[in-house]
Amino acid sequence: MNFERKIAKIISNVSDAAPVVHHITNYVTVNDCANITLAIGASPIMADDLCEAAEITSLAQSLVINIGTLNRGTIESMLAAGKKANEIGVPVVLDPVGVGASELRNKTVEKLLEEINFTIIRGNMSEIRYMAGSNANTKGVDASDSDIASSAETGVELAGSLAQKYKCVVAITGATDIVSDSTHTVCIQNGNRMLRAVTGTGCMCTSLIGSFCSVEPDYLLATTAGILCMGIAGEIAFEKAGEKGTGSFRTAVIDEISRIDGESVIRRAKLYEA
Amino acid sequence: MNFERKIAKIISNVSDAAPVVHHITNYVTVNDCANITLAIGASPIMADDLCEAAEITSLAQSLVINIGTLNRGTIESMLAAGKKANEIGVPVVLDPVGVGASELRNKTVEKLLEEINFTIIRGNMSEIRYMAGSNANTKGVDASDSDIASSAETGVELAGSLAQKYKCVVAITGATDIVSDSTHTVCIQNGNRMLRAVTGTGCMCTSLIGSFCSVEPDYLLATTAGILCMGIAGEIAFEKAGEKGTGSFRTAVIDEISRIDGESVIRRAKLYEA
Amino acid sequence: MNFERKIAKIISNVSDAAPVVHHITNYVTVNDCANITLAIGASPIMADDLCEAAEITSLAQSLVINIGTLNRGTIESMLAAGKKANEIGVPVVLDPVGVGASELRNKTVEKLLEEINFTIIRGNMSEIRYMAGSNANTKGVDASDSDIASSAETGVELAGSLAQKYKCVVAITGATDIVSDSTHTVCIQNGNRMLRAVTGTGCMCTSLIGSFCSVEPDYLLATTAGILCMGIAGEIAFEKAGEKGTGSFRTAVIDEISRIDGESVIRRAKLYEA
Repeated sequence: MNFERKIAKIISNVSDAAPVVHHITNYVTVNDCANITLAIGASPIMADDLCEAAEITSLAQSLVINIGTLNRGTIESMLAAGKKANEIGVPVVLDPVGVGASELRNKTVEKLLEEINFTIIRGNMSEIRYMAGSNANTKGVDASDSDIASSAETGVELAGSLAQKYKCVVAITGATDIVSDSTHTVCIQNGNRMLRAVTGTGCMCTSLIGSFCSVEPDYLLATTAGILCMGIAGEIAFEKAGEKGTGSFRTAVIDEISRIDGESVIRRAKLYEA
Repeated sequence: MNFERKIAKIISNVSDAAPVVHHITNYVTVNDCANITLAIGASPIMADDLCEAAEITSLAQSLVINIGTLNRGTIESMLAAGKKANEIGVPVVLDPVGVGASELRNKTVEKLLEEINFTIIRGNMSEIRYMAGSNANTKGVDASDSDIASSAETGVELAGSLAQKYKCVVAITGATDIVSDSTHTVCIQNGNRMLRAVTGTGCMCTSLIGSFCSVEPDYLLATTAGILCMGIAGEIAFEKAGEKGTGSFRTAVIDEISRIDGESVIRRAKLYEA
Repeated sequence: MNFERKIAKIISNVSDAAPVVHHITNYVTVNDCANITLAIGASPIMADDLCEAAEITSLAQSLVINIGTLNRGTIESMLAAGKKANEIGVPVVLDPVGVGASELRNKTVEKLLEEINFTIIRGNMSEIRYMAGSNANTKGVDASDSDIASSAETGVELAGSLAQKYKCVVAITGATDIVSDSTHTVCIQNGNRMLRAVTGTGCMCTSLIGSFCSVEPDYLLATTAGILCMGIAGEIAFEKAGEKGTGSFRTAVIDEISRIDGESVIRRAKLYEA
């Protein structure tokens, strides 16, 4: 079975299993993350108080940690939930939103990586450059133009070395998306520029990855599936609603995730191995 | 005046009075709760710091307490606001989101019920089963399939016994919605399955109930009105936007609440007394 | 170059510069604030933990402080970020949501005004009346009907005296919007009543002002630009989607901000100097 066909299968597996995806995430895009998780057929639960974080993780089939709006309380919850996930074998996905922009974000990511074995890390080019110790031109939570201009080759190298360092799958999303487990690297050329004009499309992509990895133990495949679905939904949403503006486009992205089917994924996928 | 006609009257009373509805709620669906409250003609205020919670309640015509994303700070605020509401005679609605899923949620609901006299409690079948001491198969914040499969008769019994225990109105929303004040029980068969595929439709339903109970002292009626409006909005939204996907459907639900009129409620209502 | 033409120029300057706009804001409307900031071409970052607030401000080209859902932690962050902004010459915008409704909000605004030199303050008539020491009939976060009925003359006087007191630009949004730097006052008669039926349209307007003041040092002009864009987007959104309901209208407002162009601003603007 080829890669695209496997991804089509994972999509139907998620809605059959309706896995619980525990999120400890930011308050900016949390509603979109919940809606996209439901749209793909999984069941989101957001819980970030230390009194329940680990317990909720033990009910879940995957854990998403997103540092978009850190505060001191939720960092402890992230650590507790992440350790519980490692203990019981539940996959953990990290979205290092805005790492490089403040000491708090940098030290939190450092501590999370020390204490938790992440299954998958997904970031934009500025975030992954920072984490890989490369020169990043961080400008807040959006990737900077100079980092976006990095070549796909540079991305492949960065993702591969970070994947090797943390023994996990690393994904960089951008004009070309790159997914690496250090041995294999997949590049994805789906998507649409308008995704950058809507807040939370990166976070939503991470939620899709969190949904897929809860039912698919081949994490390179699960990560590719999440990014590919987001890219294809972005393409179709742009065709249908791009002219109307970014508000309609955002609604259409969630629409298309809720309607996504294996056949259109197979037909539209632009994947190649690097 | 029959039940449907009374509900039509309450709908116009809300927009005439524009009551302030104080919410202490979760950060996942809070924006939708505010928008649906405005859509029905009330004025939402979200305030959860202990320094102002009780004071804001004293400005309001009703209080909604929703435990979707609990944290230790807001639990104190819920208690303070709820006690103030009881003291000044403002109705209080509880949405026990995800109770059964963690000790924090279970103990918080227990404490809230000890210290506050709730006017109305609305939950899904898993939540109400848990609260009634029945076997619940909690799977996070969404009702589990096995609980959803409970018969309407079981629901009527559970809602009635919980209503008697807490001397309040209890509502279970699901395929058939059930509203009981222990003496009378109303069943509602409006709605659409797609409501389950959008986050916060339960929370929004609670906000509608919170809006209606601020102007209607017959709380069985006010609760039925809230659930009926949500169900009818869901039906019309599905007819207009269901094919587009869950993003458009969500927008359409709020649209239809903002356009709801007594005549369509009277025409579409599928109510019966159990 | 006339006023309207200057505003058209600022709109293109924002998307050319893509300035970072740091928000410390409420969790109710934060997603809309981020999306409208992106829609106008700026880059939002939301960060409210004391450990990073000032550091994030130092990366930003403007700071928006919105007190919609205050808590004790974020008040400290507002003070730290505001002082940093003053120190490095970054403009700071205050949205005093619901001031007048609780002691916490009143004292917080008092403290913020003592310790931070604000560049611009934007509120509704109830909020600005309260801040100007005039009789306000606060009813939560929405302006009360009696305050809304204040004459434009009263508004001009209130805005002017508050602007003089705090040596900043003061804007009151309502049926007629008023912007004053105490020397000059601009009135704006664009907009649509449906903007009141969607949560966060005031907050979003403040985010637009925050975006414009980061690239335009004439703050009377930058503030007018923000309010004018919101008003014109509201008008076009109402023409296109008003009949559908408030959910579609909200999406359309963001659409129209993402599509706004200088020519339609020049053609539609209804400005006069008071």
